[in-house]
Amino acid sequence: MTNALTTEPENAVAVVQRVESFLDARLKRTELPANLVEAIRYAVLGGGKMLRPQLAIRSCEAAGGDVEDVIGPAAALELIHAFSLVHDDLPAMDDDELRRGRPTLHIHAGEAMAILAGDAMMSLAFEIICECNFDEPRRASVVMELAAGTTAMIGGQVYDTLGGFPDGLSETDRLKLIHRNKTGALIRAACRMGGICAGANDEVMESLTQYGEASGLMFQVVDDLLDVTQSAEHIGKATGKDAEAGKLTFPGVLGIDGSRAEVERCEKRAIEALAPLGPPAGPLRELCGYMARRTK
Amino acid sequence: MTNALTTEPENAVAVVQRVESFLDARLKRTELPANLVEAIRYAVLGGGKMLRPQLAIRSCEAAGGDVEDVIGPAAALELIHAFSLVHDDLPAMDDDELRRGRPTLHIHAGEAMAILAGDAMMSLAFEIICECNFDEPRRASVVMELAAGTTAMIGGQVYDTLGGFPDGLSETDRLKLIHRNKTGALIRAACRMGGICAGANDEVMESLTQYGEASGLMFQVVDDLLDVTQSAEHIGKATGKDAEAGKLTFPGVLGIDGSRAEVERCEKRAIEALAPLGPPAGPLRELCGYMARRTK
Repeated sequence: MTNALTTEPENAVAVVQRVESFLDARLKRTELPANLVEAIRYAVLGGGKMLRPQLAIRSCEAAGGDVEDVIGPAAALELIHAFSLVHDDLPAMDDDELRRGRPTLHIHAGEAMAILAGDAMMSLAFEIICECNFDEPRRASVVMELAAGTTAMIGGQVYDTLGGFPDGLSETDRLKLIHRNKTGALIRAACRMGGICAGANDEVMESLTQYGEASGLMFQVVDDLLDVTQSAEHIGKATGKDAEAGKLTFPGVLGIDGSRAEVERCEKRAIEALAPLGPPAGPLRELCGYMARRTK
Repeated sequence: MTNALTTEPENAVAVVQRVESFLDARLKRTELPANLVEAIRYAVLGGGKMLRPQLAIRSCEAAGGDVEDVIGPAAALELIHAFSLVHDDLPAMDDDELRRGRPTLHIHAGEAMAILAGDAMMSLAFEIICECNFDEPRRASVVMELAAGTTAMIGGQVYDTLGGFPDGLSETDRLKLIHRNKTGALIRAACRMGGICAGANDEVMESLTQYGEASGLMFQVVDDLLDVTQSAEHIGKATGKDAEAGKLTFPGVLGIDGSRAEVERCEKRAIEALAPLGPPAGPLRELCGYMARRTK
């Protein structure tokens, strides 16, 4: 079931497998209905890139923490991300039938199950954090990051699909507002959660936050570029849909070359933010390079 | 907007108004899209009975705590309950157009907004708990109760609408499994959260837990009885739908008289569980009486 970042950084596959094993074991010991557990497994263990878990784990390492401490929060992040995809794919939302080259959950298990499985994935994410071994102040901080990141992510999806913008924003500002929330908030939260699990001080937290914000924006610009430049077969989901749906996209607003320049600027900012962290931030730098140059 | 438990116990209206004011103020200071905030307001400040907040607040009082400490968790409980109603009403689920005498959220604001507003209500609930003033161990315990109660509630909805039962359960056992999760888990969590906020010891927590389990089951039996004995006009939502949908209900399995006897048994158990708590549990006893004899 692994479809990890297979090029960079080293050990990415091992990281993904640890998070998958954690989720597998956690789902084995729920008392939830068997059909619900099967649906959650389908959605969260379906070969995602597990980018957010990797960011959390690499951020924890960069801050001098023990990877063991962040596996639970990393799994929680993937549950939140996977829940958002399940709900975004619903007929009343993006109405997508294909995700990672497989039928979306509502095609596989029905719409009611997709709604409920998404809901359960969110609450399960918070349960998992509460079950972590680290001390309670840290646990409460991690919950706060995850909750705020999730709420912002949902707000971003509303902006993207239903509007509700503050008055007077330019097209570029609206686009950035969408994605600072829709994609950026949870990526930022992933980096910060890694830092919190490591007991990072304010300065380190600030580095990780800056890194998370820059790489989150970059990730979305790359995503939009892939949507216009790649075939559906290659990236495993429908492409060109953003433009068809009349959505604001980075290539649409900045052009393809302008978007590529934005990717470069973001990557530079992200790498610079890590300077104070020195060698332990190596894997986080590599991950940023992968995010800038990924092809799916 | 108040449609509180106007008969019993005394001060119920005041309690409800405090939770409503809290939610109103909290929603004013979010940075979420304006249309999303409006949808959340519509769903959570729409004149619900606020039973779960009342249970949390009365449980906190019964355990000798300060009501001030439990207002945030009480508001979070109502957000979770309201989110579950919004999603349960969706076309792919119960397909209800009427709730508390008003159009359901997906009729009022569209299906996509109803899905997203429900999602945001859940994550906002966890944010609210993290913002509470009480110490972090208490905060982490409250998050755990709320998360586990929410996951179980969603599992109960799956049992009720999509099956997934363990093998070999009788009809009565299946019915109890549905409602121990669907309604019971969050009511139990409400009582326990009140206790945690009061810093209750194990013995007090056990009393509140027993009370919550008995009154939660009772609440659902009464709900099923109202569904077959009351008109839609009176209770503000469609009635008789459970039987039409072929759902397992208490009157269907135990008969009307058998269900009424079950209500009496539950009430007795709930009241007995409170015995060790003495006079401070007075309002919690009254609330149980209201739950047993409510007519809407």
